[in-house]
Amino acid sequence: MTTAAETMPKGHPIYKERSPRKIRELIRRGEWDTYTKGVAMGYTQANLVILPEADAFEFLVFCQRNPKPCPVIEVTDVGSPEPCYSALGADLRTDLPAYRVFRKGELVEEPTDITSYWRDDLVAFLIGCSLTFESALLEASVPIRTIEMGVGTCDYVTSLRCRPAGKFRGPMVVSLRPMTPEQAIRATQVTTRFAATHGAPVHMGDPATIGIANINKPTYGSPLKINEDEVPVFWACGITPQVVAVESQIEFMITHKPGHMFITDLPDSDVALL
Amino acid sequence: MTTAAETMPKGHPIYKERSPRKIRELIRRGEWDTYTKGVAMGYTQANLVILPEADAFEFLVFCQRNPKPCPVIEVTDVGSPEPCYSALGADLRTDLPAYRVFRKGELVEEPTDITSYWRDDLVAFLIGCSLTFESALLEASVPIRTIEMGVGTCDYVTSLRCRPAGKFRGPMVVSLRPMTPEQAIRATQVTTRFAATHGAPVHMGDPATIGIANINKPTYGSPLKINEDEVPVFWACGITPQVVAVESQIEFMITHKPGHMFITDLPDSDVALL
Repeated sequence: MTTAAETMPKGHPIYKERSPRKIRELIRRGEWDTYTKGVAMGYTQANLVILPEADAFEFLVFCQRNPKPCPVIEVTDVGSPEPCYSALGADLRTDLPAYRVFRKGELVEEPTDITSYWRDDLVAFLIGCSLTFESALLEASVPIRTIEMGVGTCDYVTSLRCRPAGKFRGPMVVSLRPMTPEQAIRATQVTTRFAATHGAPVHMGDPATIGIANINKPTYGSPLKINEDEVPVFWACGITPQVVAVESQIEFMITHKPGHMFITDLPDSDVALL
Repeated sequence: MTTAAETMPKGHPIYKERSPRKIRELIRRGEWDTYTKGVAMGYTQANLVILPEADAFEFLVFCQRNPKPCPVIEVTDVGSPEPCYSALGADLRTDLPAYRVFRKGELVEEPTDITSYWRDDLVAFLIGCSLTFESALLEASVPIRTIEMGVGTCDYVTSLRCRPAGKFRGPMVVSLRPMTPEQAIRATQVTTRFAATHGAPVHMGDPATIGIANINKPTYGSPLKINEDEVPVFWACGITPQVVAVESQIEFMITHKPGHMFITDLPDSDVALL
C-alpha cells in the first residue's frame, strides 16, 4: 500500500494556471498525472470514493459518523459521474490524475482513467481534503512542510478507530504538519472554520499515542523534517475510506490515488464555515 | 398544517429536571406531551425523520445537500429505534412527546407513540435543532422571545428552495428570533460554531425577501412580538423535511410534531464545532 516518495515537477506551467476547469482539461488529456498539491491554490480539492448504489447508503452513514476523516462535499446522482454542485461539466472518470480500483478489499489497479469501469449503478462521493485549508494556514504564517520540501503528502494509518456503519469499518488515516506549539494553536483556530475539509487537528504531540510507531515512515508519501522547536500536528485524512475498503473487504470501490485529487470549482472560502 | 398557538405549562417540575434520561422516561410514560422548549436546557434536542430503507439514501443525500435545514446528528442502524450515539438506551418510538405520520405526502395522524408503526426496514434520522444554541445565545445576552413569551415555536415556510435529491424536494422552513442589529451580529458569531444545529442565520431583515408575506402569521407556533429597535433574524429549521414530505408526496414518513423534540444525552457543547 505504500506510495513511493515522489517529488513534484518544479516550475511546471500548471502551477501558474488559475482556472480549475483548464487544469481539469490538462489532467483529462493526460498532461498531468502526479500530485495536485500546490495546483490551483485557493480552490478546494477533494478525495474521491465511488461505490455501487447498494453500498452507498451505508457508506454515507459511515461518513456521517466520521465527519473528521470523511466530510462529504458532494454526492453525485446515481449513475452520474458529473459533480454538478462543485464542478459543473467535470467528469469524475477522467479528471483526476490517478485512481485506485479495489476489489474485495484488494488494490487491483491504478489507472489514470476509469471510464471502462463506469456503471449505471455507481455513485461518487467527494470528500473534503486538508489541502483546502493550507492557503489559510500559509496566510496565518503556519509553515506547510510538504510544500517547503516539494513533496506530495505525508500520511499515516493510526490506531484510532472510526465509528463503524454496516460493513464499513477501519482505522483513521491522518496527515502530518510539523509546527511550533504557538503555530499549532493558531492552526487549530484557523482550521476549526474548515469543518467541511477535516476541521481542527485530531492529535498533536507524541505520535505513539495514536499508534504511529515511526514518524519517519509514513504509510503514504514522504517523511517530513521536524525541527527542534516543533511538534507533529495531525489532521484526519480523506485516504481513510481506502483503508476501510481493505479492512472491510468491500466488494468494489474506486478512489483517487493518494495525493492525486479532484480539483473543484469551489473557492476554499466557499467550503469554510458558512 | 398550522399548529395552534400553545403555551407551555409554567412551573412544571420537568423544567427543573436536569437528566435527559429521566425526562425521556417522563415523556415515555405520557406525563409530558407538549413543547420541549426550555426542558433539559444545555442538552441537544433533535428533529426526527423516520423513513423506509428504500428512501434512506436519497434522504441522506438531501441532508448532505441542505446542511443548514438538515444537519444530521445521527442515523440509526436499519431496523433499530435506538440512537446509540446520542442517547444510548433511548427508544425513538416512545420518547418524543408527539409524532406526525405522513402517507403519500399527507399528514394522517399525530400519535404520542409510534410503536405500532415500527418496521424492520425503518431508519431514523436525528437532525439538529436550533434550541441547541439558545443557551449560548442567552449567555451572549441575545433575547429568546419565545422563552420570554412562554410559547413553543415560531416558524415559517419560505420561498427559499432546498437543493433536491432524488424524489426529495421542497422549500426551506425557518425559525424567527427578533433582536437588535447589534445582537444579530453577536448571534451570527455565536451560532456559526453550531453548524451541527443549523449554524448561522439564513436571512435577516425584510421577511418578504424570503417569501414570508405576513410575519404575524407563522406556519407553525405563535407570532412573536418584534420591538421597534429590532429586526427579524431567521435560522433554517428542522421542520423542513415535513414540508418536503408533503411536496414530494413521500410514500411513508414519520416525524416529530413541530416543537415536540427528541432530547439527547449530548451536551450542547458536544455538538458545537469541534
